[in-house]
Amino acid sequence: MWQLYQFPLCPFSRKLRLLLGEKGVGHELVRESPWMKRDEFVDMNPAGQTPVLVEPARGITLIDSGAICEYFEETVEKSPMIPGSAAQRAEVRRLAAWFDDRLYAEVVEPLLNERMKKRLVTRDAPDTRVLRDAMRVANAHLDYLDYLLDHRRWLAGPVLSLADLAAAAHLSVADYLGGIDWRGHKQTTDWYSVMKSRPSFRPLLAERMEVIAPPAHYDKVDFF
Amino acid sequence: MWQLYQFPLCPFSRKLRLLLGEKGVGHELVRESPWMKRDEFVDMNPAGQTPVLVEPARGITLIDSGAICEYFEETVEKSPMIPGSAAQRAEVRRLAAWFDDRLYAEVVEPLLNERMKKRLVTRDAPDTRVLRDAMRVANAHLDYLDYLLDHRRWLAGPVLSLADLAAAAHLSVADYLGGIDWRGHKQTTDWYSVMKSRPSFRPLLAERMEVIAPPAHYDKVDFF
Repeated sequence: MWQLYQFPLCPFSRKLRLLLGEKGVGHELVRESPWMKRDEFVDMNPAGQTPVLVEPARGITLIDSGAICEYFEETVEKSPMIPGSAAQRAEVRRLAAWFDDRLYAEVVEPLLNERMKKRLVTRDAPDTRVLRDAMRVANAHLDYLDYLLDHRRWLAGPVLSLADLAAAAHLSVADYLGGIDWRGHKQTTDWYSVMKSRPSFRPLLAERMEVIAPPAHYDKVDFF
Repeated sequence: MWQLYQFPLCPFSRKLRLLLGEKGVGHELVRESPWMKRDEFVDMNPAGQTPVLVEPARGITLIDSGAICEYFEETVEKSPMIPGSAAQRAEVRRLAAWFDDRLYAEVVEPLLNERMKKRLVTRDAPDTRVLRDAMRVANAHLDYLDYLLDHRRWLAGPVLSLADLAAAAHLSVADYLGGIDWRGHKQTTDWYSVMKSRPSFRPLLAERMEVIAPPAHYDKVDFF
């Protein structure tokens, strides 16, 4: 059985859990707080980041959420998440990287720093200016999603793909931390309602991070 | 013919140029300075980053260096750069991401900011503390390369791969900017000499960025 080292609000672990869920790959969760820099974890992954996926019986350790998603795309035929022609696959990967790099750095990471790490680790008060900036940029990201969904059924094209999983994973963490104002983004809220109702997404939405509570709409498919 | 939007010291463009060179994919270079935020370029790539690869005749635009490398790995059989079993391919992708994320953020990006952008754009003096930190971390990265090369012929395993191209691309930019002290890293210098002597690498080493000159050893295969 695969063991997934993760913590509930890690967006990269969430992306991977969505992919494993869609593909029906069984796994058990191992709680890891990367900010604790546990020696055994850093020995396993020199980058010190979640997710790490281990299959002890077969001696396999997989590191880096992008590399792990590609691994399961190659080894599990069910529910292709990087589908289509080479050009369509490039578009899926472009968008997944966009969400993993930009949406994460500009929105999710500052929210995690201010609302989770400061609460759990340093016990400082959150910096309201950083939070305001993150929420402003989040709005621009939702505009871009609206634009994509004006032209396409799913974010990267006509079918569900890793781009949708990555966007939903990052947005779900930002939403948990109160960083998303969904008003005025009809296309994106419709899409996110559909994502939230997928069986792969339900277990994530049911989880809670100790000490930090999500807003009331967080796990509601219809936002109300 | 593919048109590659890039600038000489963009490490992600260099990685891609090495891959195109190894695979024998013809392309012409189009000079782009992403910090100028040229409207037509941002319209092409909302991320505003190089490299972007365009094939006007076929109406294809490829964005994100990782996605582009995967595209050519899928479409050009010659010289596989993500070779081996699924687990070996995961290791190639883990290391390529490590160099693209960590080596870039901790070493190459600060060097580019201090020694290129400040020179070309803001005309401020470089921050010597930032430069010292980047060079210190560069040394730790070379230690990790030494460790990998103690156990393997190439960085990700027994054969040349995208991991080698990514590492060499980032190190070549850091080296151009005077940020690498190669002393005491025998395994890595031996490996880098071999990389430098590859036909795919020679055109990159011959290029110069206006105003900024590399150290004397920069394009010498034997470092002297």
